[in-house]
Amino acid sequence: MMDLRSELGRRKSLVEGRLREFFEERRGKLDGILREALDALEDLTLRGGKRVRASLVMMGYRAATGEEPGQILDPAAAVELLQSYLLIHDDVMDRSDLRRGGPTVHRMFSERYGDEWLGISLAITVGDLADSYAQQLIAESDFPPENVLAALGVYNTMVEYTGYGQILDLLGPHVEADVDYVLKTHLLKTSMYTFIGPLLLGATLAGADQDLMEALTRYGASAGIAFQLHDDYLGLYGEEEVIGKPATSDLEEGKRTVLVVEALRRAGEGEREVLLAALGKKGITREELEAVRRIVRETGALEFSRELEEQHLREAIEAVEEARMDDFVREFLVELAKFSVSREA
Amino acid sequence: MMDLRSELGRRKSLVEGRLREFFEERRGKLDGILREALDALEDLTLRGGKRVRASLVMMGYRAATGEEPGQILDPAAAVELLQSYLLIHDDVMDRSDLRRGGPTVHRMFSERYGDEWLGISLAITVGDLADSYAQQLIAESDFPPENVLAALGVYNTMVEYTGYGQILDLLGPHVEADVDYVLKTHLLKTSMYTFIGPLLLGATLAGADQDLMEALTRYGASAGIAFQLHDDYLGLYGEEEVIGKPATSDLEEGKRTVLVVEALRRAGEGEREVLLAALGKKGITREELEAVRRIVRETGALEFSRELEEQHLREAIEAVEEARMDDFVREFLVELAKFSVSREA
Repeated sequence: MMDLRSELGRRKSLVEGRLREFFEERRGKLDGILREALDALEDLTLRGGKRVRASLVMMGYRAATGEEPGQILDPAAAVELLQSYLLIHDDVMDRSDLRRGGPTVHRMFSERYGDEWLGISLAITVGDLADSYAQQLIAESDFPPENVLAALGVYNTMVEYTGYGQILDLLGPHVEADVDYVLKTHLLKTSMYTFIGPLLLGATLAGADQDLMEALTRYGASAGIAFQLHDDYLGLYGEEEVIGKPATSDLEEGKRTVLVVEALRRAGEGEREVLLAALGKKGITREELEAVRRIVRETGALEFSRELEEQHLREAIEAVEEARMDDFVREFLVELAKFSVSREA
Repeated sequence: MMDLRSELGRRKSLVEGRLREFFEERRGKLDGILREALDALEDLTLRGGKRVRASLVMMGYRAATGEEPGQILDPAAAVELLQSYLLIHDDVMDRSDLRRGGPTVHRMFSERYGDEWLGISLAITVGDLADSYAQQLIAESDFPPENVLAALGVYNTMVEYTGYGQILDLLGPHVEADVDYVLKTHLLKTSMYTFIGPLLLGATLAGADQDLMEALTRYGASAGIAFQLHDDYLGLYGEEEVIGKPATSDLEEGKRTVLVVEALRRAGEGEREVLLAALGKKGITREELEAVRRIVRETGALEFSRELEEQHLREAIEAVEEARMDDFVREFLVELAKFSVSREA
């Protein structure tokens, strides 16, 4: 059986090498203050991550051609810059201080200049820069111009849909979000920019046919939702030492997860009040956390969400098993989907 | 002589028609909450502006070909969406409430949902969306694929340089910005995304030769700096009723203009203190404003800046007079440069 971890690890070091090269080239063109802005972006970008998105660009290309040529590293590196762009803006919106085990970009700048708003302003701008870098890496990549042009279309559609998902996410607490609303958000946000977008980017550069594109889209939609459902599960029931953040943080952010909206729907009046009081509250106590966990479990919302995870995992696997594609890629995608719903962090 | 105002006006209504069509198409694909987000973007985008950037895309194309075909409206509309993207993020950074005679996008959302931070978060996201729309409009425009691909390269370089300019702008008050620093900021920001970028976008789609691209770049660099110097002049000495904002607002934002940094360099100790006290202060009085105006005049910084304006105007005109290009475009560009430094608003 494929060793997913080592397959990801090998691609991770290739992509990080390309990213380092990219930053080195850009640094040579900039002076003083602008170089510092680039450093903050490089720091965040290289500070970690499993590079699942970059690997999926490579898999998308290989699915159609059986190959992973050297020049696929450019668009693969580009989606990691896209990820930085989205994370930097996300962290501003959530006012988060920590990301990938270090300070967020706005935090770095706020501290350097002793001015909170300046930090936020610089972070918004550096995020925008990361987006333009990502697109330049794709635009200059060595594939047939028609394919590159189509790939840029995929990239911008990915940003567009992710934006819609972000809007739904932000407004979740302001509307009566139900399970359909939450799943739509996951599809637009997680599925699109973590799975579908990277896969289609690679496949488009390879000039893949419509059947393969559709199979990858079906896989990515289901795998992304399963991934996010599991993420939300870990966010409430995960071990703090393993997931690397307090088990209260999703609640404190007021996140509308399937667990939460389904528990709200099923709960009695008193339990509803306990849930609503916890959502968005700062400084949730251990007792409050346990009360929420118990309600989500006892209403059956936990089981409901876990079953949805399993269902989407099955759909993801079916999508690739039925499709014509490179065998290595098929196995990689199946293993990745299984890993997405079994990981503990 | 060319009637610049009516030439701009004619192109403005064409481009606004295309923008309305674009929003109508997109709206058809979205429901409920997402449609509201789109409405905010459409509202800001269509609320005004002379559409100089859009017209310059058309001029860039015409410079090389003598023509302005219908499909040039797509990239022309795209640069207006780019402008919305940059304005929305700029207004967040400046925490401005007003833009083009109406509420800024973050203000609209803050009021609708009664939550200031949610308004800012939605505005950042809607800005990002505008960028992806702009690039999709270019990517799908009906020109040879190699040219479209190169045009997307121009677009992203424009965003990149504007980002550098924005960083310099934000950090101006935190470093000892001198005239060179301010002019570099103007070149990266105003010249790039108001003049050079739009012109090169159009010229690239037309497959223009290197000589023309260089002439347009030289023109845009100088015209942009002249435009911004005049803008900063109006920001301090303009008539409030004509420029549509308080004559104190540039000072209150702490903007480092050539007027300000040159006056600081030339001023004696006491005058320096008056200037520094006014920069970034909220609620500047009429007396304080007049004191600053007097110091900028008496140190000779005003004359210095006006002469720089004239010098850049001359350089802009020279750049196009020497170049081979469509005669109509040459005249248009000369008139636009002259208008940039003579307008009263």
